[in-house]
This record gives sequence, structure tokens and C-alpha cells, in this order.
Amino acid sequence: MKAQKYKHEFDYSYALGMTITIELLKFKPQYTKLVYIRPNIDKNENYNALMEMCEKHNIPVETSEKAFNILSPKGNCFVIGVFDKFQEKLDKTSHVVLVNPSDAGNMGTIIRTAVGFGLDNLAIVRPAVDIFDPKVVRASMGAVFHVKFRYYDSYNEYRNEFSDHNLYPFMLRVSTPITKVEFKKPYSLVFGNEASGLPDNFADLPNTSPVVIKHTHNIDSLNLPTAVGIGIFSATQNDF
Amino acid sequence: MKAQKYKHEFDYSYALGMTITIELLKFKPQYTKLVYIRPNIDKNENYNALMEMCEKHNIPVETSEKAFNILSPKGNCFVIGVFDKFQEKLDKTSHVVLVNPSDAGNMGTIIRTAVGFGLDNLAIVRPAVDIFDPKVVRASMGAVFHVKFRYYDSYNEYRNEFSDHNLYPFMLRVSTPITKVEFKKPYSLVFGNEASGLPDNFADLPNTSPVVIKHTHNIDSLNLPTAVGIGIFSATQNDF
Repeated sequence: MKAQKYKHEFDYSYALGMTITIELLKFKPQYTKLVYIRPNIDKNENYNALMEMCEKHNIPVETSEKAFNILSPKGNCFVIGVFDKFQEKLDKTSHVVLVNPSDAGNMGTIIRTAVGFGLDNLAIVRPAVDIFDPKVVRASMGAVFHVKFRYYDSYNEYRNEFSDHNLYPFMLRVSTPITKVEFKKPYSLVFGNEASGLPDNFADLPNTSPVVIKHTHNIDSLNLPTAVGIGIFSATQNDF
Repeated sequence: MKAQKYKHEFDYSYALGMTITIELLKFKPQYTKLVYIRPNIDKNENYNALMEMCEKHNIPVETSEKAFNILSPKGNCFVIGVFDKFQEKLDKTSHVVLVNPSDAGNMGTIIRTAVGFGLDNLAIVRPAVDIFDPKVVRASMGAVFHVKFRYYDSYNEYRNEFSDHNLYPFMLRVSTPITKVEFKKPYSLVFGNEASGLPDNFADLPNTSPVVIKHTHNIDSLNLPTAVGIGIFSATQNDF
């Protein structure tokens, strides 16, 4: 196959870098189509492990400078995994719900945190960044290969599918401080867009307990991945 | 003055963007030397507020397309504040200590979170990213103008200056889970480098209670600003 710069319309995407490609092969070998190797790669332990996994799963390996020039022009990348996009149904367990997330780096960081705290079901309400954008995959450090996720066209669509979930939207209006909230399973931790947050009316829906992370007035808001990190940590801390 | 791309050796730096320049003028007008305005700026409410502040503090305003071409070639920036670098002594209050932070965006995000939770004293142990790098200033959303910070050549130099502080290094070895830690004031929350964390021997120093944020084995580590966010949140949550 010919390497082409990633586009949202593709039915495949790229894992850029050794660590992330190893995560791909560990957790989603069935979706891996091909692994590109840069000719001047250091043939170390990781390289050997990678080759072994490719052999085990019958994944073709192609040595090509060109693919790297196209897909990772900055040059400190020596391995690229090409994989088919996938989507699985969410479990009835607790979820993280991102409403209109717009930044690829943030999305990746959030996935890494969610997987880190064992919350590996993610609902994403459109419009939203593309979870298979190589920037998301990279910022997640491969954690994207551990999550079940599903896109929804509206928050209502999501709520209808999981009508028994206890909804905890993070917002400023009429909200309980997070330190006083007891998260009842199965829960959905709901976070809004980086710039605009969640619409006010999210607080008034059934099964809903709005939550606030209090902070000083010296900042407008917390950075989204930080707020999500604190939210997930608070909800899951008794599980560890 | 002639606009020049930022260099670490300069004794001044840049606040790129309207919001951040307004923060600069609100909290550090005494260090502001000059404000650049892009000729095609929208003369809205923020613009008027900005002009008023410049007049009040006798800060020269220069309309110049050229400065923007040099300092912010991407083009969605209409205001640049030029300011002298500053440094103040840390208070004897609680601190955040960053040991060898290497990423400008992370440093900015961490400052935003620290200010958000009222921990506005920051010690930075070299080698470390330059806090006045415009990328740090920008990622902090201007919160950098709220913190007192100081660079140290070693962790020991910092510890000697604040020998009464209770040290809470965040690390994996022989550590107490964060949910069981009672942070005693004045405390220092100590975080290591993005890739390498803190050296093991930090756990063995006097006045030291190592802390761990437990997570699953499906990730190597939390993203640094997320870990710092959870740490600061946990230490300060009773203050809110």
C-alpha cells in the first residue's frame, strides 16, 4: 500500500512511534494491517519484540524511508503501525462522556487518564475531534487501543441508550462541589467543550447531579484534561 | 524597539494574544514595556479595556503588522504585550516544586492549575524549561503573571532554603496512596520530569513523605499536568 497523509475519511489510521505501535500490536493485532520500519532503525530489544509480534500475527513489515517522509516528516519516528479503524459497543459499566471535544492532544491525554483509572468506556458527542487522528493516538500513548468508544450525534441519543446511568455533568451552575459528591455506579462523568463548557440545561435533565470543581477567580477555568483527570480520579479513587 | 523572535537570553519576553496581554496589564503593569497592536484588530470592548489600561500605566502602544509576522506568524493573534522578565522571592507558604520539567505546554498548564487552586508559589529545579518562553506564557493563559517562582540549581538548594517544609514527592517507590495522605502545611508537592520521574533517593530525605497516585498497569504513567492537577487538588481541597 502507498503511504498517504492521514485524512478523516480513511477507514484506516496510523500509530506513529515504537511505543504506540507496540501497544497497537499487543491490544489490537486483529486490526493491524502493516508496520513500516525506517531503514536506519536501531535494532534493539524493542525492535526484536516488535518483529516477533508481527511474525506471530502475520502482519507484513515494510522497510521504507518514504512512508516516514510523508507521515512523520519531523524525523524522530522509526516505526509506524497502520491499522483499520474499529468501534465497539459500550458496556453498561461507568463511562466518560465528552461533549464536543475539539482538541486532539486533549482527547489523547484524556483517554490516557481514563484508561489509567480503569474507566475504559468513552462516549463522544459530535461535533468532535476524530479519535483516530494520529495526534490523538499519539497523545494517548496508545491508550486509545484500550478503550471502547462510540460517537453520538447528540447527548440525548447517548442518554436514551443508557437511561439508567447516573449523570454527573461537570459545570459551574447549581452544582455540588466534587469533594461532597458520592458517585453512584453506573455513572457517566460528562465534560463539555474546551472553550464553552456544557450548556446550562444539562443540569436540569433526569438522573442528573451537576458537579463543580471549585477554584479561585484568578483563572477562567481549568484546562480540560486536568478537570477530567480530577473528575475521574475522584470518582474512581475508592476502586484502587 | 525592534521585534525579535524570542530567545532565552533576552531580558524581556512576549505575551501573545489579547486575553494574556490583559492578564499581564492587570497583574504586572510595572513590567510591561510596550503593547503591539495588529492594524486590522477588531476595536471591540476588550480592545477598549486594553487601551484604557495602557493609558493608565503609561505603556506605549505601537501598531505594526511586522511585529506580528515575526512573533506570531500563524496569524490569529492581534495583540502582543512585551514585558521585562521578573523574579520574586518565594513565600514561606506551601509550594509546588517541579524538578527538571521539559515541556513548555505542560509547564504553562501546571501554572494555570496551581493558580487555580491557590498554590501560587513555584520552585523549578534546573535543567528546566524557561518559564518566560512565550509558549509557557500562552499555555498558562496568563496565570504566569500570578505566580511567584524561583529557579534552583539543585533540589538540595531548594530544600536548604525551606528546611521546615514538609516534602511530598510524587513517585512510585515506597509511597503512600494519595487518598491516605494528610498534607501538612507548609508543604511542597514535588514532581519529576515527564519521562523519567523523580530519582529514587528523593524518598529517603528528611521531612519526606512520598506519595503515589495509583493507576492501572494499562498505562505507563499519567500525563504530568494531570498528575500535578490531581496532586494539587488533593492537597488543597479542604481550602475550598
